[in-house]
Amino acid sequence: MPEKPEVLNHEIVTDTAIFRIESQLLRFSNGVERTYERLVGKGNHAGAVMVVALDDDHNVMLIREYSAGTECYELSLPKGLIEHGENLFDAANRELKEEIGYGAEHIQFLTEMTVSPGYMSYRLQVVIATGLYPEKLEGDEPEPIIVVPTPLDEAINLTASEDITEARAIAALYMARDRLKQSEMSDEIESIF
Amino acid sequence: MPEKPEVLNHEIVTDTAIFRIESQLLRFSNGVERTYERLVGKGNHAGAVMVVALDDDHNVMLIREYSAGTECYELSLPKGLIEHGENLFDAANRELKEEIGYGAEHIQFLTEMTVSPGYMSYRLQVVIATGLYPEKLEGDEPEPIIVVPTPLDEAINLTASEDITEARAIAALYMARDRLKQSEMSDEIESIF
Repeated sequence: MPEKPEVLNHEIVTDTAIFRIESQLLRFSNGVERTYERLVGKGNHAGAVMVVALDDDHNVMLIREYSAGTECYELSLPKGLIEHGENLFDAANRELKEEIGYGAEHIQFLTEMTVSPGYMSYRLQVVIATGLYPEKLEGDEPEPIIVVPTPLDEAINLTASEDITEARAIAALYMARDRLKQSEMSDEIESIF
Repeated sequence: MPEKPEVLNHEIVTDTAIFRIESQLLRFSNGVERTYERLVGKGNHAGAVMVVALDDDHNVMLIREYSAGTECYELSLPKGLIEHGENLFDAANRELKEEIGYGAEHIQFLTEMTVSPGYMSYRLQVVIATGLYPEKLEGDEPEPIIVVPTPLDEAINLTASEDITEARAIAALYMARDRLKQSEMSDEIESIF
C-alpha cells in the first residue's frame, strides 16, 4: 500500500448551517500534488448511528419519512446523530424512542460504515436492537414518521425495488441477516453439546 | 403516504469547486414549515456509476485507492461520473478501462442507490460487468490504483472488516451475489427442461 499523501495545506472553504467544506492540497508519495474538497464534521455531534430494530418475530422496523435530498418518501432505517456525552447505545435507544416509539433491551454493535469516503469524512455506526418495548420520546420531525414493521427477508427483497434505495440501509439489512444467521447457528451448536 | 411538502422558497447557498448546497424552505402537508440544506448536482455530469466487475471465476475486481474524505486507503469498487452524451454502459466500460485496465463484453443494470437521501440529491447506478478483456485507458488518478481480484464470497466477508466500509460497495456486493444466484438457478431450471 502506498504511503499516505502529505497534507501540504488545508482550509475551510465554506461553513453553512449544516455543511462544512474543507479544501486540502495533498502531495502523494510519487510527488503528484492535487487539491481535494471534502465534507467534514462541524463538531456539533459525536458521530451517527443507524439501527436495525427487530421484534421477536424478526420483523425489522422500517420507517418512511420525507427525504429532502431526493425529494421523496422512501423506506429506510431509524438513524440520527450521537450527541456529545451520549454513548452509541444510548443514542440508538433515544433515536428508536423518538422515531418508532420503542425502546430496546438489547443493543449490539454490527459495523461501521462510510458513505462517500472520497468526499466525506462521515462515518456511521450500525447496531442491532432487540427486546423492543413501547416507549415514546418526542423527536424533532416536522410530521409523524410512518413505521412499517417488515419481515427481514422481505425487507431485503425490497432493496431490489425503488422503495429502499439508501445504500447504508441496504448494507445494514444484509449484514444484520448474516449476523442473525451466525448467532442462530452458534445457538444450535450450543444446544447440541 | 403524506402529500409531498411544498417548496416555498429555494436558493443556492454556496457553490464550490465540486459542491453545490441549496437551501429549501418546505411546508409539510400538516402546515409545519422547515428549512433544509441539501447537496445538489452541479450539472457537469449525467449521474454516476459503480461497477461490480467479475472475471470468469467469479472474482470481483476490488480496488484500493486513497480516499480524501476518510483520509485512508480502503478497498471499494470502481466508480465514476457519467459524462454528458455517454450512456450508463459506456461510462461503466470507460471507468473499468481507466481504473482496472479491463473492458467488459457484457454489462447489465443491477440497481439504483442513494447515499444520503435526507441531504443529497445524488443517485448512483450500479451495474455488473462480465466477459472482461485487458484494455487500459489513461485515467486522472494521482497515483496508480491497486486492483485486488477477490472471490465474491470472500469480498462479502471483508465487509465485516475495516477494509471495506463503503455502504454503496457493501450493498452492491450483496445484491450482485443475489443476482448471480438467481441467474444460476434459472440456468439450472433451463438445463432441466
